[in-house]
Amino acid sequence: MSCYIENLGDHTDQEVTIRGWVYNKRSSGKIKFLLLRDGTGLVQCVLVKGETPDEVLEAFGNLTQESSLKVTGVPRVEKRAPGGYEMSVSKLEIVQIAEEYPITPKEHGVDFLMNHRHLWLRSSQQHAIMRVRNEIVMAIRQYFYENGFVLVDTPILTGSVGESGQTLFATKYFDLGQAYLAQTGQLYAEAGAMAFGKVYCFGPTFRAEKSKTRRHLTEFWMMEPEVAFNDSDDNMDLQEDLICYVVRWVLEKSRPDLETLERDISKLEQVVKPFPRVSYDEAVKKLQEVGESDIQYGADFGGDDETILTKMYDRPIMVYDYPRAVKAFYMKQHPERDDLVRCNDMLAPEGYGEIIGGSQREEDPEKLIQRIKEEKLPLEAYGWYLDLRKFGSVPHAGFGLGLERTVAWICGIHHIREAVPFARTMGRLNP
Amino acid sequence: MSCYIENLGDHTDQEVTIRGWVYNKRSSGKIKFLLLRDGTGLVQCVLVKGETPDEVLEAFGNLTQESSLKVTGVPRVEKRAPGGYEMSVSKLEIVQIAEEYPITPKEHGVDFLMNHRHLWLRSSQQHAIMRVRNEIVMAIRQYFYENGFVLVDTPILTGSVGESGQTLFATKYFDLGQAYLAQTGQLYAEAGAMAFGKVYCFGPTFRAEKSKTRRHLTEFWMMEPEVAFNDSDDNMDLQEDLICYVVRWVLEKSRPDLETLERDISKLEQVVKPFPRVSYDEAVKKLQEVGESDIQYGADFGGDDETILTKMYDRPIMVYDYPRAVKAFYMKQHPERDDLVRCNDMLAPEGYGEIIGGSQREEDPEKLIQRIKEEKLPLEAYGWYLDLRKFGSVPHAGFGLGLERTVAWICGIHHIREAVPFARTMGRLNP
Repeated sequence: MSCYIENLGDHTDQEVTIRGWVYNKRSSGKIKFLLLRDGTGLVQCVLVKGETPDEVLEAFGNLTQESSLKVTGVPRVEKRAPGGYEMSVSKLEIVQIAEEYPITPKEHGVDFLMNHRHLWLRSSQQHAIMRVRNEIVMAIRQYFYENGFVLVDTPILTGSVGESGQTLFATKYFDLGQAYLAQTGQLYAEAGAMAFGKVYCFGPTFRAEKSKTRRHLTEFWMMEPEVAFNDSDDNMDLQEDLICYVVRWVLEKSRPDLETLERDISKLEQVVKPFPRVSYDEAVKKLQEVGESDIQYGADFGGDDETILTKMYDRPIMVYDYPRAVKAFYMKQHPERDDLVRCNDMLAPEGYGEIIGGSQREEDPEKLIQRIKEEKLPLEAYGWYLDLRKFGSVPHAGFGLGLERTVAWICGIHHIREAVPFARTMGRLNP
Repeated sequence: MSCYIENLGDHTDQEVTIRGWVYNKRSSGKIKFLLLRDGTGLVQCVLVKGETPDEVLEAFGNLTQESSLKVTGVPRVEKRAPGGYEMSVSKLEIVQIAEEYPITPKEHGVDFLMNHRHLWLRSSQQHAIMRVRNEIVMAIRQYFYENGFVLVDTPILTGSVGESGQTLFATKYFDLGQAYLAQTGQLYAEAGAMAFGKVYCFGPTFRAEKSKTRRHLTEFWMMEPEVAFNDSDDNMDLQEDLICYVVRWVLEKSRPDLETLERDISKLEQVVKPFPRVSYDEAVKKLQEVGESDIQYGADFGGDDETILTKMYDRPIMVYDYPRAVKAFYMKQHPERDDLVRCNDMLAPEGYGEIIGGSQREEDPEKLIQRIKEEKLPLEAYGWYLDLRKFGSVPHAGFGLGLERTVAWICGIHHIREAVPFARTMGRLNP
């Protein structure tokens, strides 16, 4: 019978067939080692001259890296072997001898690797990142499911602009003119929150931004909950609770993958409540005191500012109540400070910076219309959004979590292009 | 303390505050009934002249449909009330008196309702559909998670064409020319399967099709698993197992919502293995025998053909091995029949028709190149895809499940535009 490498433990001392690809092979005198991967793990296959059938030894000789094959043998526990099992081979069926594999153990440039992303995913580091991503997504969905949130998948093709008209991808939409690719699902999630109380959306979002930083993609996944009757403080409580849940989940499920990535796990273990809450005013003061930043009061933080700020703390921090002038039109005006809005960003530690941006939303229809006009956005496109303030408007709040930034932080990788299977940046649309 | 209506059972005989919206109100002599919704359920609030404080009775008089409010009182079990609880009101705080609500109990046209989709979602039928959708999505994700599949989110913006160049949305992509919105994640999922063995993607897909049927949207969610070493029969086994799991899950979790939708639950209870497997050849013969279809051998089925066919069975059926000429280039040639490919569709019963399309993939690089040329697709755009056939090619198979079609079938609704929060069709881009 055939089985997956991850299930070998259920079949010790039985003959099984593993179907996979050559990850590595080497010979040591009479013994030959074949490291096989099948996507669920690695297993070391052993061939011994004199014991292993001759045709198997011959087939071994022909194998190239990434050749596909079926290997039959009896697995046994071997703590020193990668994956913890070893298999004596009694049968070896070649499916395909691979052409010379372009990715070798030598150093390749990033561009070369990104050009071969469809193959690079097979390497153990990339494999580990994608498995952690899989766990993070499942943790997030489980968290919202358990807590009674309803998933509201929001549209990608939209007639109305999201946050700003600057960075939109547009496409011709039949006879209806231009459609824009959603920058956010938030406005639709707000409609959902008025219908279902607690909702979230989780899908790809798009920014046609000419940014080339390690924190930007043109297409990225964003998870956006929205809760009726929540204020900005409730919103921060929810963020904190979610992030602790996700980190705990990953620590429980993904330890081997984090070890493959050489992640300092002790840093993740520090991610417990409460997270420091720092007002924008305080944060600017701190940055100015440290002296490494040239931030002026009233400006938004740059990536470098966030890096400096997060290095002062051992866990994520939440910076709240930013100047209205640097934030989106829908954020609720601060009740005591006309220049501020009730919002917050969550900045991940170790220099990672913003992973969440959230706010209480302006529920007053007059103030909202005024802000739309101030931002010179087309009022007529927001008709349905303004309806939410006419028919039972309530205080509400929500946030957006950038999946790739969260994956990059939790995996401890430098650039978010490795946190997504097929990254899209200004200069990359392939593979 | 405030609580959600769905949790009232934990707070009987305690004073709690519910925050929500007026769903309905009526008076009967000295007693006034206020039906309140908060997104998690409905609760009947009771006000009695002489017992309820005067200011509460006065506030009740001012309430319009969808006005937002906070109601304090003590919940008690009342089997006859919607939701099973009733609450005597001791305090009523109005958050906002809603303007005259456009959706009334009278019949509205579909276009009117779709124009007010952001409000229509609040009605109990739409609420129920979205909650079932939420359960279906969670069931699917849980199924793949439990079975060791890795989520591989595939890109929306692509340089290469998916299945055919006919129905693509395009957008300008910086200096790289045109990007196309993905019609499928399959090609990328195939790369994932070679890296992880078992993968799935689940995201929005796009077809710029000028179809106006009840089964078509221009933007819809598709879930696509891909498994290395699976053949077409394994692929059908997986489909069958998944659909049974999802239907069981919904029957367990969503009974009240299915009842709201007046779904014939006995029909869903019949969805158990095995599903009939009917070859294309047999299916055409059956259709010709019945005489209601004008299908010619060699043609693909139309929506009407599927409706007729599915009405012959009490559960989903799988039609397999279609003519190569009507199917996509990547499907595996039948080993004995040059004119067929190893593929299948799953057709949902009760006339719903196709919810899944799947196939074994052509793993032979020469045959694949030949098919790309036959279809006059740009070979150079498939370079990376062909790499998967050079470096350890293996038999593999997968399928795509259309989420909205599945939701429509399980909920028993006629048109898929109600199976998604904000539908996109040829004629609709708003709200």
